[in-house]
Amino acid sequence: MLSALNLITPEQQSRPYNFAPGPATLPFPVLSQIAADLYNWQGSGVSVMEMSHRSPEFERIYHHAVTDLRELLQVPQNFKILFMQGGGLAQNAIVPMNIVQGKPTDFIVTGSWSERSAKEAMRYGNAQVVAHAKDSFSGFYGIPGEQGWEIRSDAAYVHICSNETIHGVEFYELPDLKALTGRDLPLVVDASSHILSRFIDWSRVGLLFAGAQKNIGIAGVTLVFVREDLIGKSIYTCPSVFDYETLAKTNSMYNTPPTFAIYVAGLVFQWIKEQGGVKRMQELANERSNMIYACIDESNGFYKNQVAPSARSKMNIPFVLQNDELSQIFVEQAAKHKILHIKGHKSVGGMRASVYNAMPVQGAVALVDFMKAFAKQYG
Amino acid sequence: MLSALNLITPEQQSRPYNFAPGPATLPFPVLSQIAADLYNWQGSGVSVMEMSHRSPEFERIYHHAVTDLRELLQVPQNFKILFMQGGGLAQNAIVPMNIVQGKPTDFIVTGSWSERSAKEAMRYGNAQVVAHAKDSFSGFYGIPGEQGWEIRSDAAYVHICSNETIHGVEFYELPDLKALTGRDLPLVVDASSHILSRFIDWSRVGLLFAGAQKNIGIAGVTLVFVREDLIGKSIYTCPSVFDYETLAKTNSMYNTPPTFAIYVAGLVFQWIKEQGGVKRMQELANERSNMIYACIDESNGFYKNQVAPSARSKMNIPFVLQNDELSQIFVEQAAKHKILHIKGHKSVGGMRASVYNAMPVQGAVALVDFMKAFAKQYG
Repeated sequence: MLSALNLITPEQQSRPYNFAPGPATLPFPVLSQIAADLYNWQGSGVSVMEMSHRSPEFERIYHHAVTDLRELLQVPQNFKILFMQGGGLAQNAIVPMNIVQGKPTDFIVTGSWSERSAKEAMRYGNAQVVAHAKDSFSGFYGIPGEQGWEIRSDAAYVHICSNETIHGVEFYELPDLKALTGRDLPLVVDASSHILSRFIDWSRVGLLFAGAQKNIGIAGVTLVFVREDLIGKSIYTCPSVFDYETLAKTNSMYNTPPTFAIYVAGLVFQWIKEQGGVKRMQELANERSNMIYACIDESNGFYKNQVAPSARSKMNIPFVLQNDELSQIFVEQAAKHKILHIKGHKSVGGMRASVYNAMPVQGAVALVDFMKAFAKQYG
Repeated sequence: MLSALNLITPEQQSRPYNFAPGPATLPFPVLSQIAADLYNWQGSGVSVMEMSHRSPEFERIYHHAVTDLRELLQVPQNFKILFMQGGGLAQNAIVPMNIVQGKPTDFIVTGSWSERSAKEAMRYGNAQVVAHAKDSFSGFYGIPGEQGWEIRSDAAYVHICSNETIHGVEFYELPDLKALTGRDLPLVVDASSHILSRFIDWSRVGLLFAGAQKNIGIAGVTLVFVREDLIGKSIYTCPSVFDYETLAKTNSMYNTPPTFAIYVAGLVFQWIKEQGGVKRMQELANERSNMIYACIDESNGFYKNQVAPSARSKMNIPFVLQNDELSQIFVEQAAKHKILHIKGHKSVGGMRASVYNAMPVQGAVALVDFMKAFAKQYG
């Protein structure tokens, strides 16, 4: 049990709402627990930061984290859970190094993250974009219809980014490649920016990865869920520390893992459990995002989000102001209302509200209140 | 200035001495500063853990860290300093991927870390052990004489581990490959377990790397110092996030870096500066290690360290008890005297005292006092 859980302190009440896309806001009880453990974790005499990864103390931390995670996401036993380094971008190389086996790889591009994944995979063989959002939309505003995906018959896997952090495009359901292709084709999913905000249909997944710094914890650890039959097929030039087989055999401790980041992730998992699990996270994600999209849609064009309603992200909500000259004023005024880091990605402009699990509903309320007042003042 | 510096609190006084080999003990003022900053870094309203790596706040943290580090180690301008992920072991692959250029690579093996480096490099070409401690000693007990190194005329580089963490073997001076071979041959140095404990003769170095979890900070970040002329030569299958050129061009922010680990490293650099810099760290390393080696050597064989005096590590001091049956009792009794994590690596047995920069001299005194009392009781 997190010691400070459900205890709203004055410190917590005075915190600003941090809408950063990642690294992102942490649940306050998690920060409190970190503070409580800082000098001396559970009587061990040392900080988690100072603890050998081979110590019984850290093994407990690791075991607790991985068990909670498996329970939270109902991960089947035939999936290994690995804690790795390098972030989601490293997985763009590590995935093909591990599972490509000389075959082609197919990519569905729905935003800049999947686009980068496709580009990186070209280093390891015949990677191809088999469906691109811009063929169906005027920008990264939706998911191209599955019937148009030109998946190759000899593909090693199909890659999607199930939530595009920059463009705010989310797959509400993972594609069923079996139904689509008639084959048992592994789906590779980059779920970095919405993992743990909803359940995952593992029967449709071959491999799923997620950088921690959005919905899991702090930057520096990446989770990889890999189906056992995809392990043990790496190319010879795959570095040992990034070989799924090596990691699976050593419980991610082939070398020193990012121990503190794993500890923080474990606290977040515990916090989610205590909130009511992934089901509750999903309800809250709906509540927050519905509120903000409604505000945008009801602003008579003052704010605008162009993503198709069937693919609007519940975690990252980009929007522009009709009058872009107001954008800078919006950011400045927002900060005065304790709304921080709301500016959009430089490639897109405008604003972006990242509303991960740790964002209190009150944060979304505060943002909507501010947006309405701002629109009224400047509209 | 670290807020809690030079202030010995009751909490600090009661801390046990943590001799773990890494992750390892942190300077107490660094832990205190982390605690002070935890909820709200310098009025930013957010924790460093919650801060975007693209924010001006984090840019300040990064800039401060890298500037202090360059100053502390007097790193010349023609070396780039990179903050990477994956630990020292990842560099065993990343170094050859970046600089091998199809040429052979030569390894000096003085312990299990350099041995692993050589093995990993074989994935990327013709890696060979050109000198092995076991050819000159009965174990990993010293450095084979440079005149016997069979360096190949077409080698891309020569690799050493300048301090073997497990076997306690240290190069007191980096080899001068120019003098030895007559060529401008890059020396690659794994300095993970003694970086910042002494100055580095950069004129002898091509590339130097160090995992952070011993003398730099917490696990999850690896420092790489690379001479500019070695950048931009990577093989095509080198993952982008591990390409030195990509990292150098983006100030290590091609993707999200391990922000919190960089922040902690920055606090450690600041602490070292305030202690009197690397010169002072070197004096303290001598003081601590001399004391412990003297205790071992004066124990009439009760304790034993077999490393040649010219190569005894000042950071990692492995020793065995003449009567190995006493080892378990030693560990248990030590813990009662607030001496923690003194057990040796499983491949070596016995004990190992890791006395990094953050180990107070009083810790070495406490260890020596305990060792003497123990020898008296059981000898």
